[in-house]
Amino acid sequence: MEPNKNFAPVCPIPIQQYPHVLMAHGGGGKLMHQLIGKMFLSAFNNPLLEMQHDSTVVEWPSGKKLAFTTDSYVVRPIFFPGGDIGSMAVHGTVNDLAMSGARPLYLSSAFIIEEGLPMDTLWRVVSSMSDAARRCGVQIITGDTKVVDKGKGDGLFINTAGIGVIKHKQKIAPQHVRPGDAVLVSGDLGRHGMAIMAVREGLAFESQIESDSAPVADLVSELLRAGIKIHCLRDLTRGGLASALNEIAEASAVKIEVVEKSVPVREDVHAACEMLGLDPLHVACEGRFAAFIAAQDAERALQIMSGHVVGAGSAIIGRVAKSSTPLVMLKSAIGATRILDMPSGEQLPRIC
Amino acid sequence: MEPNKNFAPVCPIPIQQYPHVLMAHGGGGKLMHQLIGKMFLSAFNNPLLEMQHDSTVVEWPSGKKLAFTTDSYVVRPIFFPGGDIGSMAVHGTVNDLAMSGARPLYLSSAFIIEEGLPMDTLWRVVSSMSDAARRCGVQIITGDTKVVDKGKGDGLFINTAGIGVIKHKQKIAPQHVRPGDAVLVSGDLGRHGMAIMAVREGLAFESQIESDSAPVADLVSELLRAGIKIHCLRDLTRGGLASALNEIAEASAVKIEVVEKSVPVREDVHAACEMLGLDPLHVACEGRFAAFIAAQDAERALQIMSGHVVGAGSAIIGRVAKSSTPLVMLKSAIGATRILDMPSGEQLPRIC
Repeated sequence: MEPNKNFAPVCPIPIQQYPHVLMAHGGGGKLMHQLIGKMFLSAFNNPLLEMQHDSTVVEWPSGKKLAFTTDSYVVRPIFFPGGDIGSMAVHGTVNDLAMSGARPLYLSSAFIIEEGLPMDTLWRVVSSMSDAARRCGVQIITGDTKVVDKGKGDGLFINTAGIGVIKHKQKIAPQHVRPGDAVLVSGDLGRHGMAIMAVREGLAFESQIESDSAPVADLVSELLRAGIKIHCLRDLTRGGLASALNEIAEASAVKIEVVEKSVPVREDVHAACEMLGLDPLHVACEGRFAAFIAAQDAERALQIMSGHVVGAGSAIIGRVAKSSTPLVMLKSAIGATRILDMPSGEQLPRIC
Repeated sequence: MEPNKNFAPVCPIPIQQYPHVLMAHGGGGKLMHQLIGKMFLSAFNNPLLEMQHDSTVVEWPSGKKLAFTTDSYVVRPIFFPGGDIGSMAVHGTVNDLAMSGARPLYLSSAFIIEEGLPMDTLWRVVSSMSDAARRCGVQIITGDTKVVDKGKGDGLFINTAGIGVIKHKQKIAPQHVRPGDAVLVSGDLGRHGMAIMAVREGLAFESQIESDSAPVADLVSELLRAGIKIHCLRDLTRGGLASALNEIAEASAVKIEVVEKSVPVREDVHAACEMLGLDPLHVACEGRFAAFIAAQDAERALQIMSGHVVGAGSAIIGRVAKSSTPLVMLKSAIGATRILDMPSGEQLPRIC
């Protein structure tokens, strides 16, 4: 990774003069232009963003489809073990693009800042976004800055939208899952949600639980390059594995059978979940996905996934079957079978 | 305009049961799926959104450039004379695309809802977005819903990102303004900002000031179709005409000379500005833009703009000149000349 030579190592806004973000930093006048010019342009530096146009114009490869997605990030705390709201805002949107098998190219970045946010906090987040974007090979090419009055926000909310290019010919979507498909997950589940909850609840474990926040687009590209028949990909964020599988079952009108003991969950995550009365299968990840793969390609897909840095701990956890009603069934270690429903209430607020 | 047959005329979420938005409506479980399915999918209805994929895949016309933009909307109050946060979130992003001469095609829509927002308020905003999108000929094809705890937001923030296609060969950007260019505005200035401030400050005038919020993409298309040589377009939002012209002067290293009496500002807007100690040239519009046009096309551009429903009141307000330093000069009615600077503080918080 080339270091970004124009990137200021310390907050480029003089923090003696502006220790906190002011309403005027979102007002369209001099302070906003200073913030954009000195902080955002220097951190995200690329010629497209520097055009500072109301919208940014790019060439598009002929004959290629486009994937488009958006997410707002309202996680608290802003910094947590294994990541922060800035890296999440890049990884999360990159991952949503990857779920269509797209190669992520461009992101937008829109900040809603609460008046009074320490300028240095904003800078740390922006630096983290910049790092994450470079690692993911995406460019942040357009943006927006709003400041809301103290008490009308919560430090910082970030929205990113993303555009990716699709070069494969596969149909990867919830509607394309078929009976017989193998269900894989790309690693152990629930770490992101539990990393956040452990911080908030002050839980102490022998070792700190770190978020799994990571970009998975490169891993998905490897599967596509290897010719693996992918029917659907879904990242396992809010609502965890349970919500994701129920959504897919509904969309394809199938039954999904999961073998509980094959679902990878770390000991410390299990323990934290038990303490808080949570089901790990309801807990969000930020760097994990479920893959629905044609049965004959399942073992090969598992090998590729397991061999990738963000896919260590991948597992085949179940299969898809015919059904008259959409359903997710969980087979326990003692052979009992129960319905795995999606969560109904809200147990883990603001984890993403 | 075809009525949308699948569009529920009343709030599709049972408001006896859910009079307010709950944290669980953003939790990834059943309530969130109900909100997305019954409200967002029915209001924004289109087959692309209904795929409910992590990212939405579209074809892209071969050989055509793409414009990409984003804005978050934090305006308060949410409803104001002449518009609301929902219609603004569509118009504003459509207008940003139009400023590149792009035809807007697709929007994303991401909601950050404060717990406790009346469900019916959300529905009114979503309905308004849906109407605005249909009028603008754009589809909302991907989205996100977050709920933050009471006291950590302000009712509702909306982010939209937009994608448009560029079919012309012109270079429309701040850097392409040239000495000799005519400067036009597409109508009277400052109405949006003053409509909001009048509501907030409880100012009463003989007639209510209504926001100028409107989509201008169609008007821009007409200019392009007529072969008008457009060097730059800029919408006149936060910071008003003063900020926009200073940004352009800076980007092209030119002087912009504006004749004050040719700048269209309505009497009631003038009066409201005077009462609040504001300069109308610092006040935001949401349906106005400045156009930098090759001198020989200026009169023809003015005719086209004036003849369009959102361009009534268009005017040629000045010209671009050579300069050793970027500068915006304002020539007053009595012949005096002063520098028109961008605002330094924040006089009009949260008008967009």
